[in-house]
Amino acid sequence: MDSTTVADLSEDELIASFVPLLPRGRHTLVPTGDDAAVIAAPDGRFCVSTDVLVQDLHFRLEWGDGADVGWRAAAQNLSDVAAMGAEPTSMVVSLVLPPTTSVAWVHDLSRGFAELCGPLGVGVDGGDLSAGTQLVIAVTVHGDLGGRDPVLRSGARPGDVVAHAGVLGHAAAGMALLASGRRGGADDGLIAAFLRPRPALAAGPAAADAGATAMMDVSDGLLRDASRMARRSGVVLDLEPLERSVPGDLERLRDAAARMETDAAGWALTGGEDHGMLATFPVGTALPEPFRPLGTVRAADGDHPAGSVLVGGTPPDVTSMGWDHFRR
Amino acid sequence: MDSTTVADLSEDELIASFVPLLPRGRHTLVPTGDDAAVIAAPDGRFCVSTDVLVQDLHFRLEWGDGADVGWRAAAQNLSDVAAMGAEPTSMVVSLVLPPTTSVAWVHDLSRGFAELCGPLGVGVDGGDLSAGTQLVIAVTVHGDLGGRDPVLRSGARPGDVVAHAGVLGHAAAGMALLASGRRGGADDGLIAAFLRPRPALAAGPAAADAGATAMMDVSDGLLRDASRMARRSGVVLDLEPLERSVPGDLERLRDAAARMETDAAGWALTGGEDHGMLATFPVGTALPEPFRPLGTVRAADGDHPAGSVLVGGTPPDVTSMGWDHFRR
Repeated sequence: MDSTTVADLSEDELIASFVPLLPRGRHTLVPTGDDAAVIAAPDGRFCVSTDVLVQDLHFRLEWGDGADVGWRAAAQNLSDVAAMGAEPTSMVVSLVLPPTTSVAWVHDLSRGFAELCGPLGVGVDGGDLSAGTQLVIAVTVHGDLGGRDPVLRSGARPGDVVAHAGVLGHAAAGMALLASGRRGGADDGLIAAFLRPRPALAAGPAAADAGATAMMDVSDGLLRDASRMARRSGVVLDLEPLERSVPGDLERLRDAAARMETDAAGWALTGGEDHGMLATFPVGTALPEPFRPLGTVRAADGDHPAGSVLVGGTPPDVTSMGWDHFRR
Repeated sequence: MDSTTVADLSEDELIASFVPLLPRGRHTLVPTGDDAAVIAAPDGRFCVSTDVLVQDLHFRLEWGDGADVGWRAAAQNLSDVAAMGAEPTSMVVSLVLPPTTSVAWVHDLSRGFAELCGPLGVGVDGGDLSAGTQLVIAVTVHGDLGGRDPVLRSGARPGDVVAHAGVLGHAAAGMALLASGRRGGADDGLIAAFLRPRPALAAGPAAADAGATAMMDVSDGLLRDASRMARRSGVVLDLEPLERSVPGDLERLRDAAARMETDAAGWALTGGEDHGMLATFPVGTALPEPFRPLGTVRAADGDHPAGSVLVGGTPPDVTSMGWDHFRR
């Protein structure tokens, strides 16, 4: 049975084998299996975001099992609707599977979605399958705003506090450890942060309720995503050195960084895929847990145009700010 | 410029170059560009469906331009929400692009989405991009039921009339003509039916309003999809010979079928991707335009178990009922 591949089953047989493993959501009115699912949208609006994962670019089969990939695909999507101030309700998943894909891997993938989404009441309410040369997982996620105004990237105002909920650099460290073949001991926590990120989902709606002026999910690294928020808001984000604002995060990275001969602060400033929440709040706001202040929003000026991110008052000396899919 | 590939641009540059080409929808409250889009759901529920297209399996670059592929990707998704009785409101699109993909092709793809979705007020409200070895287009579509009960596949009852809106076999004929290298003259209409299918979108809500008991989009061929409806409803669909029910459809196929040395009725019974609506109605219902009666729903019996489809009272002698992605 373990050697059964998707080519051994008809499409209907394969679907029938994994659908019972998928989570059914609290908002699901008509589940997967018809031309479309029907999902409750009590707010009268819904948030929607989509993210695609490609084999060898976003995950490697040898780095974890299918459940790790399912968890991570779900996590990075859930995080996007939380970053609007919404609670996730439902997702759909399209899979492109090489004919050699094992059925067991597809079942594990389904279990990974269920492990993260099930307890949240989020359904996997539809999908599509195709053959292809490379594994592709395309997830679309939906959320309900529960009457909140959506929190955009563009609302940061000079004087606001910049804050972050979640970890910084842990997933990047975990990926570097995996890529170097390290496993075991203290490294496993960082590796788990990469394979099974725990986005700060509750922090999104909590930030919206607390009056956050801007928010986004940190998926491509703090500096890169902060500069996107700064550009969209027409401001400068002035961050304190992370050694001062989040010493615990750096401490957690320092041992692995020393062994990998790299810089813990570099991981924390540029490492992606932690899926924490970056938000700005009017000064004096009692920050909801687990937000921690990182710095201040400043007006752009002649020295620092809109979109700039400063660390300790100056542009950080980082040559690689995140990564890019297409640039040669 | 025409030789520019996606590898020549950063991800942000590529996105900025095609987003202005995408349609903005009537239901779009927060458009693409933030962590998630926000879409109006006036009904308090939304329909959602997803479909993935893979290069060389669902389309071939040499068969048409990017706009044809975008149109077809949009059409087959829009059809799925119409088949629930909903009006489409919004879609999101994930793209996996080989680095050699030309930027002009991606722009054409965006225009194809806009040409079909724009006049319908359907937005392309988000997406994601990745590199990969093979072109993949994953579309998720949403629809609003406008207070209607969703029409499921499972509601057909013995005595109901079976009806269809749209064309049958035209896309299959068009694909066969393209595969054989034919173009021009009378064939171009059939080729257009494959490259730019026109799903019977208005027929979906109209059928729901008229009291349709079951409905689905015909994407994998009439016989295969009818047997799915029959199985889900626990009934038998008893169709008249198509020569009697839809003689015009067969007539339109006959010349091409003769030249391809195949059978027009075979195309009409098993050809997929026309995206017509198959529905059942209580006997005596005035069928909404453009539905045409195809037959009758019967109770399963010892001779014909639930899920059977009969043509002229007997199981049709068709060895290949549609197609399957994975079966070797």
